[in-house]
Amino acid sequence: MQALRDLGEHEIIRRLVAGLGTHADLRVGAGDDCAVTTLSGTGLDQLFTTDPLVEGIHFLPDTQPERIGHKAVGRVLSDIAAMGGDPQWILINVVAPLECAMERLEGIYAGMRVLCERFGAVMIGGDLAQGPCLELHVFGTGTLPSGSALLRSGAQVGDQILVTGQLGGSLSGWHLDFVPRVEEARFLRESGGVHAMMDLSDGLATDLRHILKASGVGALLEASRIPRNKSLDGALYDGEDFELLLTVAPDAVEDLLHCWSKRFDLPLTIVGTVESEAERLRLLPVEGGEPMVLERKAFVHFSSDSGCD
Amino acid sequence: MQALRDLGEHEIIRRLVAGLGTHADLRVGAGDDCAVTTLSGTGLDQLFTTDPLVEGIHFLPDTQPERIGHKAVGRVLSDIAAMGGDPQWILINVVAPLECAMERLEGIYAGMRVLCERFGAVMIGGDLAQGPCLELHVFGTGTLPSGSALLRSGAQVGDQILVTGQLGGSLSGWHLDFVPRVEEARFLRESGGVHAMMDLSDGLATDLRHILKASGVGALLEASRIPRNKSLDGALYDGEDFELLLTVAPDAVEDLLHCWSKRFDLPLTIVGTVESEAERLRLLPVEGGEPMVLERKAFVHFSSDSGCD
Repeated sequence: MQALRDLGEHEIIRRLVAGLGTHADLRVGAGDDCAVTTLSGTGLDQLFTTDPLVEGIHFLPDTQPERIGHKAVGRVLSDIAAMGGDPQWILINVVAPLECAMERLEGIYAGMRVLCERFGAVMIGGDLAQGPCLELHVFGTGTLPSGSALLRSGAQVGDQILVTGQLGGSLSGWHLDFVPRVEEARFLRESGGVHAMMDLSDGLATDLRHILKASGVGALLEASRIPRNKSLDGALYDGEDFELLLTVAPDAVEDLLHCWSKRFDLPLTIVGTVESEAERLRLLPVEGGEPMVLERKAFVHFSSDSGCD
Repeated sequence: MQALRDLGEHEIIRRLVAGLGTHADLRVGAGDDCAVTTLSGTGLDQLFTTDPLVEGIHFLPDTQPERIGHKAVGRVLSDIAAMGGDPQWILINVVAPLECAMERLEGIYAGMRVLCERFGAVMIGGDLAQGPCLELHVFGTGTLPSGSALLRSGAQVGDQILVTGQLGGSLSGWHLDFVPRVEEARFLRESGGVHAMMDLSDGLATDLRHILKASGVGALLEASRIPRNKSLDGALYDGEDFELLLTVAPDAVEDLLHCWSKRFDLPLTIVGTVESEAERLRLLPVEGGEPMVLERKAFVHFSSDSGCD
């Protein structure tokens, strides 16, 4: 008998995903930011995603309720943005202990609602259960023109790799206040030159590997070009940036950056190039010289933080 | 500051629902078994529902994993059936402690998948988090012809009140093995004479009040006609039957029962009549005489069972 602690998060998910289903209308199943289904007759596809938010792991007992709600919905909107989608419906399951203050839940809902209204999402339902610590399980849908979802599997050799914003240092506060890149993502989807996209939740070095694996390619990152709030290491590994990571056809990059700069104040920065050797991730050091191969972290623990302390 | 324990489940939900949103495509929001949205251009509406399943409340540490999975998805399929819908997509958030056995999760997923495949639902994604006790949060969608959802608000004075199956005594095992009434509900929706429908999760006397309130009507139940596994009290209050409760136009009942009996072995039984006095629920005793007014239970605790013991 194997306990979850002995397996690591990737292996647990791999085994559970093996039990999921298939369907002719299911374009993209588990493994991307959202599942994608065909909405026959509408010219649209529909996106589906869920995110759990657990006290003690994703927020603390003294975190301001509105910021908890902001983060809970923000993570889901960021997943929808990562495909280039327009947010649609939101449902929320709340788990709470008996001693939880009603005002705290109402503050959380207020935070969720403000963010929903800003990006055109609508909270339409959910459910409530008692449990030992506060949790929010947010389920969201989105839509986009049929076949236009930006997947992790679309990167091509020679593509430029770009990121929005500044990376790293999120735990000093940004992880509770980030703005999901919904408008930016829609612009990128409509611009046409983007081959692959995802949102950054686990750090550039960790997340880029998902694109490399899904696309069967490698990458060279240039350390000097990575826009960072603090250290290079923070930009590569901190996580919870909720910025966009994308690969763009080389002949489309110049136009894209030009149009972007007219529309958004947010930086959009080239940080590397897609290479041919599958799943090899290399980093050109700030000081130049030879690129070094970045090894995958040997084992990603199934979250070793303990919730609900 | 008010704690959840002091408010009761109805008041907590009432306050949270007040924070939800509205939209032109949202036909039915919180307060029915599913939210109902318009799928423009398809001739269909889409249904959305969520259900949490928490260890210690909805199942026990020694409950067979396949039965946990069956119940988790079954509750969602029962909500979709309650509107007359066809199940579509399923996503699952899992919360589990580090010491949870991987085989247990795989058994749960196997149980979910068997039930999904039986009723045409497809598991397409979800997420995973660590937490102090095992929980499953199942999100489901369904579809049905536009405008055809059977709501709680459709009951009319003079309607006959019917239930499927036998009620009560679910905790002796049925609550883990029930069959969501998906096919029966589709038949009832297509039959045309059904005015209101919901699934029975909290017992006939408790759930019927939701229809009475939503429809602005009252009801007379006839104790002698209520099909029950054990006691009358069990049929009225035990809960977790996951049978269908519906009201039918009086001139459509005979035909409906005739066609039903040709199609299903499951009993469909008249148990009462819709009356005009809003929200008054009366019961004609088994021994006859004068109907007695059934009082609402004074206070429904926010689940006083403690999860994760």
